[in-house]
Amino acid sequence: MTIQYADLLTIGAGGGAYPAAFRLARAGRSVVMVDPKGLMSGNCLYEGCIPSKAVRETAEIYQSQRRFAERGLPGTITVDFAKIMAHKDSIQARRYQQHAADLAATPNIQLIQGEARFITPHEVAVDTADGERRFRCAQVIIASGSDVFVPPVPGAEFCLTSHDLYKPDATLKTLPERMIVIGGGYIGLETATFFAALGTRVTLLQKGRQLLNGMDPGMVALLTPLLDPSIRILTGVDVTAVEVTPEGGRRVHYTHGEENDTLDGDVVLMAVGRRPVIPAGAAEIGITVTRKGVAVGPDLQTVHPHIYACGDVNGRVPLFHAAVRQSMVAAHNILGGNIPMDYADFRHIPTTIFTLPAAAYVGITPALAEAQGIPLQTGRYDFEEDSRAQILERMEGGIQLFFAADSLRLLGGWVVGIDAGSLIGQIGTAAAHGLTAYDLARFADQHPMSAEGIGKAARSLF
Amino acid sequence: MTIQYADLLTIGAGGGAYPAAFRLARAGRSVVMVDPKGLMSGNCLYEGCIPSKAVRETAEIYQSQRRFAERGLPGTITVDFAKIMAHKDSIQARRYQQHAADLAATPNIQLIQGEARFITPHEVAVDTADGERRFRCAQVIIASGSDVFVPPVPGAEFCLTSHDLYKPDATLKTLPERMIVIGGGYIGLETATFFAALGTRVTLLQKGRQLLNGMDPGMVALLTPLLDPSIRILTGVDVTAVEVTPEGGRRVHYTHGEENDTLDGDVVLMAVGRRPVIPAGAAEIGITVTRKGVAVGPDLQTVHPHIYACGDVNGRVPLFHAAVRQSMVAAHNILGGNIPMDYADFRHIPTTIFTLPAAAYVGITPALAEAQGIPLQTGRYDFEEDSRAQILERMEGGIQLFFAADSLRLLGGWVVGIDAGSLIGQIGTAAAHGLTAYDLARFADQHPMSAEGIGKAARSLF
Amino acid sequence: MTIQYADLLTIGAGGGAYPAAFRLARAGRSVVMVDPKGLMSGNCLYEGCIPSKAVRETAEIYQSQRRFAERGLPGTITVDFAKIMAHKDSIQARRYQQHAADLAATPNIQLIQGEARFITPHEVAVDTADGERRFRCAQVIIASGSDVFVPPVPGAEFCLTSHDLYKPDATLKTLPERMIVIGGGYIGLETATFFAALGTRVTLLQKGRQLLNGMDPGMVALLTPLLDPSIRILTGVDVTAVEVTPEGGRRVHYTHGEENDTLDGDVVLMAVGRRPVIPAGAAEIGITVTRKGVAVGPDLQTVHPHIYACGDVNGRVPLFHAAVRQSMVAAHNILGGNIPMDYADFRHIPTTIFTLPAAAYVGITPALAEAQGIPLQTGRYDFEEDSRAQILERMEGGIQLFFAADSLRLLGGWVVGIDAGSLIGQIGTAAAHGLTAYDLARFADQHPMSAEGIGKAARSLF
Amino acid sequence: MTIQYADLLTIGAGGGAYPAAFRLARAGRSVVMVDPKGLMSGNCLYEGCIPSKAVRETAEIYQSQRRFAERGLPGTITVDFAKIMAHKDSIQARRYQQHAADLAATPNIQLIQGEARFITPHEVAVDTADGERRFRCAQVIIASGSDVFVPPVPGAEFCLTSHDLYKPDATLKTLPERMIVIGGGYIGLETATFFAALGTRVTLLQKGRQLLNGMDPGMVALLTPLLDPSIRILTGVDVTAVEVTPEGGRRVHYTHGEENDTLDGDVVLMAVGRRPVIPAGAAEIGITVTRKGVAVGPDLQTVHPHIYACGDVNGRVPLFHAAVRQSMVAAHNILGGNIPMDYADFRHIPTTIFTLPAAAYVGITPALAEAQGIPLQTGRYDFEEDSRAQILERMEGGIQLFFAADSLRLLGGWVVGIDAGSLIGQIGTAAAHGLTAYDLARFADQHPMSAEGIGKAARSLF
Repeated sequence: MTIQYADLLTIGAGGGAYPAAFRLARAGRSVVMVDPKGLMSGNCLYEGCIPSKAVRETAEIYQSQRRFAERGLPGTITVDFAKIMAHKDSIQARRYQQHAADLAATPNIQLIQGEARFITPHEVAVDTADGERRFRCAQVIIASGSDVFVPPVPGAEFCLTSHDLYKPDATLKTLPERMIVIGGGYIGLETATFFAALGTRVTLLQKGRQLLNGMDPGMVALLTPLLDPSIRILTGVDVTAVEVTPEGGRRVHYTHGEENDTLDGDVVLMAVGRRPVIPAGAAEIGITVTRKGVAVGPDLQTVHPHIYACGDVNGRVPLFHAAVRQSMVAAHNILGGNIPMDYADFRHIPTTIFTLPAAAYVGITPALAEAQGIPLQTGRYDFEEDSRAQILERMEGGIQLFFAADSLRLLGGWVVGIDAGSLIGQIGTAAAHGLTAYDLARFADQHPMSAEGIGKAARSLF
Repeated sequence: MTIQYADLLTIGAGGGAYPAAFRLARAGRSVVMVDPKGLMSGNCLYEGCIPSKAVRETAEIYQSQRRFAERGLPGTITVDFAKIMAHKDSIQARRYQQHAADLAATPNIQLIQGEARFITPHEVAVDTADGERRFRCAQVIIASGSDVFVPPVPGAEFCLTSHDLYKPDATLKTLPERMIVIGGGYIGLETATFFAALGTRVTLLQKGRQLLNGMDPGMVALLTPLLDPSIRILTGVDVTAVEVTPEGGRRVHYTHGEENDTLDGDVVLMAVGRRPVIPAGAAEIGITVTRKGVAVGPDLQTVHPHIYACGDVNGRVPLFHAAVRQSMVAAHNILGGNIPMDYADFRHIPTTIFTLPAAAYVGITPALAEAQGIPLQTGRYDFEEDSRAQILERMEGGIQLFFAADSLRLLGGWVVGIDAGSLIGQIGTAAAHGLTAYDLARFADQHPMSAEGIGKAARSLF
Repeated sequence: MTIQYADLLTIGAGGGAYPAAFRLARAGRSVVMVDPKGLMSGNCLYEGCIPSKAVRETAEIYQSQRRFAERGLPGTITVDFAKIMAHKDSIQARRYQQHAADLAATPNIQLIQGEARFITPHEVAVDTADGERRFRCAQVIIASGSDVFVPPVPGAEFCLTSHDLYKPDATLKTLPERMIVIGGGYIGLETATFFAALGTRVTLLQKGRQLLNGMDPGMVALLTPLLDPSIRILTGVDVTAVEVTPEGGRRVHYTHGEENDTLDGDVVLMAVGRRPVIPAGAAEIGITVTRKGVAVGPDLQTVHPHIYACGDVNGRVPLFHAAVRQSMVAAHNILGGNIPMDYADFRHIPTTIFTLPAAAYVGITPALAEAQGIPLQTGRYDFEEDSRAQILERMEGGIQLFFAADSLRLLGGWVVGIDAGSLIGQIGTAAAHGLTAYDLARFADQHPMSAEGIGKAARSLF
Repeated sequence: MTIQYADLLTIGAGGGAYPAAFRLARAGRSVVMVDPKGLMSGNCLYEGCIPSKAVRETAEIYQSQRRFAERGLPGTITVDFAKIMAHKDSIQARRYQQHAADLAATPNIQLIQGEARFITPHEVAVDTADGERRFRCAQVIIASGSDVFVPPVPGAEFCLTSHDLYKPDATLKTLPERMIVIGGGYIGLETATFFAALGTRVTLLQKGRQLLNGMDPGMVALLTPLLDPSIRILTGVDVTAVEVTPEGGRRVHYTHGEENDTLDGDVVLMAVGRRPVIPAGAAEIGITVTRKGVAVGPDLQTVHPHIYACGDVNGRVPLFHAAVRQSMVAAHNILGGNIPMDYADFRHIPTTIFTLPAAAYVGITPALAEAQGIPLQTGRYDFEEDSRAQILERMEGGIQLFFAADSLRLLGGWVVGIDAGSLIGQIGTAAAHGLTAYDLARFADQHPMSAEGIGKAARSLF
C-alpha cells in the first residue's frame, strides 16, 4: 500500500480542525482533513448551533411581531414550519458552499470522506468508500468532536435527537403539537423554548433538581422564571421507557420520587448529553483518554507532542468557538515545531444559552469563586431601567459583573435577557484581558443600547 | 431677596447634569438642578435618542417581518403610525416616572423649573414661574445642552424639526406620504431611513457632497449604498426657501449648481445641525465661549475651577453617553475639591448612526490617522460570511478594525450593518483600554454571533 | 472644654495618615493629624525602612568596593560606624525638614503632638503636653501603626530593638563585634546581613524551621544559601532568657530540641515581630479589633463608614507603601462622602526583603497558588547568564514569574539577587494590571540590564 | 560546487540573528549563521554595550566609593586601568564561552566564519578561509549590523573608535590623561563620562548645537548640566583634520563659527555615528536599501517575503534588545510560513544613555508629541525628594511621564539620574501595554525605592 505523507492530518473537519488546517496550508504545509461526512464545520453546522439558531431567530422575530402587534404593527402572522426548515436548510447549504469554495481556493489541502484510525503515532489509516488509505503524518490533530449520548432506556430509538431536528433536510417535517424534551441541558432547554414560541406545547423532563446542570445556580435561578410559562418543566424525573402509542405518538414512562407516571407527546427529544468521539487506535498508541475525552492541557498537546486534540473531543469547553481558538493554538504550536507558542485560555470563553430569552456568562461566576475562596464584589444592572429593553418591551433580566473584591479586576459576568449573546462579548473581552471596574466605569457605553448596563453595573461599585 | 446655598447647582438636568447631581447628593452635598422644562434627561429623552430609537426599533421589526414573510412567518402587517407614536410616548412617560421616583427617593437634591443665569461666578439667579430665586453655589455645572439650529431660510417656520417629530405627544400625527429632509447629518439621515421603512417616500437634501459630514468618508462610503434605495438623496444642494402649497403641503426651493429647482412634500424636516445653549451671564463672568460651546478640557473645568461644563454645551462629543461620563468626571473633580481626580476621554466614545442599517465607530479611523501621520493595519470582516447575518438575511456591511501598524494596538474601528450599535461597545472597550490585535485574536468570540467578526478581523492580520 | 471641628482627624501621621491628610487639605477640608512624636512619616522614617536602608546601602557599597578591589579599583576601605550612623541621621533630618516644610506650606492642616483616644465615633480627645484637646470629626483615619513586639522573656530589657538601632541618634554607637539576632523575620534577617557585611560576627536564632516565616518557602529556599555564610543561623530555637554578662555583654539562654544552651554576644537584637497599636477607646465605640489589628476591607472603612483604618494598624500589608496607597484610598472614599470610590488591592504589593543580597516578590507565588488550586506555568531566568550580573560579579539568584497556566496572565513573581527591589516594580506593575506572558515576551527589555531577565523568563514559556 | 540546503541562513550572528536561529533550530529547522568574526552576539559583545558597560559600572563604583569616603567608608582607592580592561575582557570571554556552549548544545545549527553575499533571492555564497560555500536558503535573515562611520577627515586614521576602546584585548592599554571625543552622540558622550570619572581630562567636540542629536531636546537639556563639569564640551564645532604631534599625541584641527582652532590630546575618539553594513548582492536581488539601511516594516520582511532584515542593518532602532525582539518576530514569521504572525513595535523600546549619570526614555516624548499634534499631561517627580536618592547622595534628575491629555494613557517617559536604566523598564512596560495614569497611581510602588517616583509622578495629575 502506498503511504502518503502529510505535514498535518486532522481527524475531523469541524471547528477544532479546519482553522488549523487552513493556517498550515497557507504556510505551505501539506494538509489532509478526514471527516466521516466529508463536510467541513462539524456538528455545529450540520446539526448544532447554526441550524438551531436559524430556528431560534425565526421564533424570536415571531415573538417580536406578536409583541408589537399592539404597538403599531398590527396584523396576523402564522407559522409555516416547512418554510422555517427550508430557511434553515438554505443557511446550511450556503455555508457548505462557502466552505467548499474556500477549500477549492486553497492549495495544499484536501478533505477526505472517511474514518480515521491510528496505526502508530505517526501513521493513520483512513477507511474510505474506495478502500483504505494510509498517511504518514508529521502532526495529527484529533478533532473528532462529540456525539449525542443516547442513554440505554428502552424505546430510546423512538426519540428524536438534535440530529433529527436540525440536520439538513431534517427528520422532523411538521411542527408537533406536543413535544416532550428529555434533558434540561442547554440543547434541551433551547429547543423547548423555540418550539414553545412557535406554538408547540412542550414538557421538559429533567433528572436533577436544577436545569442547566453544571452552570452557576445563581444564573439559572434568574433565567428559569423568565422562560415561557407554557413550558411545563418537571425536575427530579427519571425516564424509564419510551414507547410508540397506537396513534403513532410517543409515550414516556418515568418515575418521580416514589411515583411512576407517563406522558404522551407527538415527538420526544432525547437531549441528555453528548460524549466525545474517540478515534480508533488512540488508546493503543498511548493517548490518554478519560470519560471526558482526550486529555490535553492548554497547549493542546497529548502525550505525543505532535498529536493534538482540539474541540469537543477533549471535553474542556465543548463549544464551536472554543474549538476554533483551540485549533489556532494547535496550529501555532505545530508551526513552532511542537514547542508551544500559544495556549488556550479555557476560562474566558463566552457561553450563551440561546433560550428565549437567552442567558450568557463568562469567566468566574459566584459559585466557582466561592469554591476557590475568591471574595467578589458584584456590580448589578436591571433591564427594568434599560431604555432599549423598554423600547423593545423586554425588560426582564439584567447584567451582573463579578469583580475581585480588592483589585476590582473583572473575573466574570452574566447577562440574562436581551442582547445576552452580544453583551457577553464585551464582558468577556474585558475579563479575558484583565480590565477592572475602574476601567469599565470610565468607558462611556453607548446610549441607548443595553451595553450601557455594563458601565452602570461597574459604576454601582463606586 | 433670600439667597440659598447649594454645594452644587446644575444648569440643565440632562445627561451632563443629573449623574453628577445624584452622586454629590449621595455624598451629602446639597444640590439644585435647574431645567427650563423641569424635567430630567434633557433632549435625549424629550426629543432625541430615546423617542427616535422607539420609532427606529419598531421600523426594524417591521422590516424583519417583511423579510421573514417568505421564510416561515407569512402574514400581513400594516403600520399604525398613531400607535407607534403612542408606544414612543409610553416609553418617554415611563422614563420620566422613573426619574421622578429617583428624585423623590434621594435626599439633598431638588429640581427647579426655570431659567438660570449667572450673576457672579458663585451666584446664579433662576427665573421661575413664581419669580426669581437666587443661589450661592460652591460649584456649578453648566449642562444646558444644545438646541436645533434653524438656519435663516425664508419659510423655515413651515418645517418640522426633530422636536416636532419626537417630543411627547409629537406634532406629527400621521405618517406622511412624502417627506423632505433638509440635512444629511445623523439626525436627518436616521429619520429618513425610519420613515422610508414605514412607507414614506423620502427625499434628502444635503448641502455638501458627503452625507454625515465630519465622519470618516470611508465609513460613510460603505454605509451610503446600503440605505433604502427608495430614499432619494440629492447632494450639493442649497435650500433657498420653504413655502406652504395651496394644498397645505410644503414646497422647498433649492439651487443645485447653477440650477434652481423645487420639490414638494407633505412635511419637511429641518435637520441642518444643533448649537449649544449658553446660559445667560456666562460670558459676563469670564467663561470662554466659542462657536462650538463653552471651552473646557478633559477635566471639564472652565476658567473658573469651580464651574464645569458637561455635555452638548461644551461641543466636544455631543452624545448623551458622553455627557453622562463627563458629568461623572465633573462630580469626581468637585468631590476632589476642584482639584482634578478624573478626566474625560473624548476620543474613545462609541458613536452609532442609527440608520437602517446602522453604522457605528469609535476611536481613530483612517481619515484621522492619515491626518496625524499614524500608520495603520486594518483588520476586516465581511458580514457576507457571517452566520448570524445569514440567518437574519442581512448580510450587507461588515467590521473594520484599525490597529497601530507596529504595536498592533487597537486605535479604532467601525461596524456597518447588523448589530453595529452592540459590536461597537466591545470594540470601544478594547480600544479605550489599550488592547491589541494579539489580544483580540486570542479571545474566542461567541459563535454564531456577529462578534465573531471582531476576532476574525483581528486574526486577518496574522 | 472647647470642641474644635475637623473634617478629618488622623490618629498617627505616618504613611497611612499624611497622604490622605494632605489630599484632603488641598481639597479645602480642615485636617488635624495627631502623632505621639509630633512627627510625620511614622516608624518608617523614625526607625524603619529609611534608616535601615541608609545602613544597607552603605554596606552594599562597601561590598562592591571589596569585590572590585581585584578588578581595577585597588585600595583599602575601612568602616567608620559613627559616620555611617551620622549619614543615616542626616537622611532622617533632611526628610523631617522636608515634611515640616510641606506641612508649613499647606493650609488647612495641623500636626499635634499627643495621644488620641476615641470618646464617641465622632469625637476624639487628644492628650497633649498642654492638656487635653477635643475634636469633633466628620471623619477619622486610624493610622496608629505598629510597634515592636517584645516577648515576655526574662531579660528582654537587655536587648536592643530596631528602635535602638535605627532611630535618630541611635542607642547603638559602635559596631559590635558579636551580635545575636533573635528572630528570622525580615527585620532580623536584614539587620543580620548589614552588620555581617560591615564586619560583625552575627548569630541568628529563629524559632521555626524556616526563615522569613509566612513568605513563600520556595523563595526563602533560594535566598537562604546566598546569605553571607559568616552569619550563623540556628533554627528551631526557643530563647528562654537574656542576661548581662559580667563583662557587660549579653548572654542568651535557649533551648534547641531537648538541649539547653547559651550564646554570648556584645548586643542582642530582639526582632520577633510587630503588633498593631490600637488607639484607646476604639473597641468601646464598636470598632472591630482582632489580634491582627483593626478590621477593614478594601474600602478601608471600619464598621463606622466615616472611620477608616490604614497602614500597619489594620494588619493587612504592613509596609509603608501599602499604607500610603491605603491612605489615598481612604482619602478618595472620604471625598466621595464615605461612599467608596476606591479600593486597596492588598494582593499586588511589591515586597522586598532588603537583605544582602535582597529578595523581592509580588502577587501570587507557588505556595499560595497551590493552596487556592490555581495551576501555574513558571518562567525562569538565572542571573548566571545575566550580563549586568556578570559585570557586577554578582551572579547568584534569578527571576521567576508565575503565570496562570492557560491564560498566561502574570499572577506573581519573585527576584532573588541583584536589582531585586527595582525589578519587582516592573513585575508588580505587570501583575497588578493584568498583563500576560505574551505581553512580556513582546516587550524588548533593555540590554544589558537585569530587566532583560523578565522578558527572557516570559519567553521561556514559548 | 555543492550547494547545501538551509531552512534559514542568517547573515550575521548578533542580536538580530541568533535568537531566530536558535528558535528555528529548536523547531527542527536547519540553520546556518554566517559571521565575519565567527562569533555570536555581534558588536554588542565585541565592542559595544557589554564591554562599555563593564567600564561604566567600574567607574560608577569608583564614584560611589569617593562619595561615601566621607560617609562612613574612608580609604583610598586608585584606578588600575589595565585591570579594569582585564575585567572587561573576562566578561567578554565568559559570554563567548556561554554562546559557544549554547551552540554546541543545540542541534540543527552551525556558525560559519565568512562573508555572505546574495547570488539570487534563495542562494547565498559564503566566502570562508577555506573557499566559497553555497547555500540554497528557504529563508534568509539579514542581520549584518552596523559599523563605525569614519568621516573623510584627513588624519581620521589617527583616531580611535569604539572598536579600539572596547574590543577584547583593546588597543587602548593605558588610561589617557587627555582624551578628545569627536561626536556628542550616545557613544561619544557615554565614553566621555566614563573616562572623566576615572580621571581623564576629556574634551568633547560636537558638530550641532545639541548633544545627543535626535533625542528629545527637553531630556537632553535636563541631562547636560548633570554631566561631570570637568568634561569640556564644545558645540557647533567642525573637525577639519587630525594629526600626530611630535610627542606622539594627537592634534585636532577644527573650526568654530568663523574661527579655526586646534586642540591637543593623548587620544582622540572618533564617534560621529554608525552606518549599516549591507551584504553584497542585496541590491542586485532587489532588496530596497536606503541610507538608513535595508527597508522593512514591522513584519521585518523585505520585498522578498522570505528575506528578513533585523537589527542595526534596518536602521529602525539600532539597539541590541530591539534587534533581539526583531529577530524573534522574524522567527515567528518564518515559522508562520512567511505569513506574518508577529510584528515589531518600534516605538516602545526602552533606551538608555549610559552616561554617568544616565538618562533613559521610552515611547512618545514631548518633542514628538508636539510634532504629531498629541496633547499631553505630564507627571513629574524630582529625585531631590527621593529617599533612595538621598541615601545614595545622588539627588539630581528625576522622572517625567507623558500621558495622553484625555485618556491619560501613558505614551512615554524619561528618567534622568539614578536607576534610569532600571526604571525605564517599568515605565516602558506600562507604556507598551496601554496602562494609564489611573493604573499607575493605584499601584503601590515599593518604598524606599526610586520606583516610588513613578507612582508619585502619576499621582501628581490627580
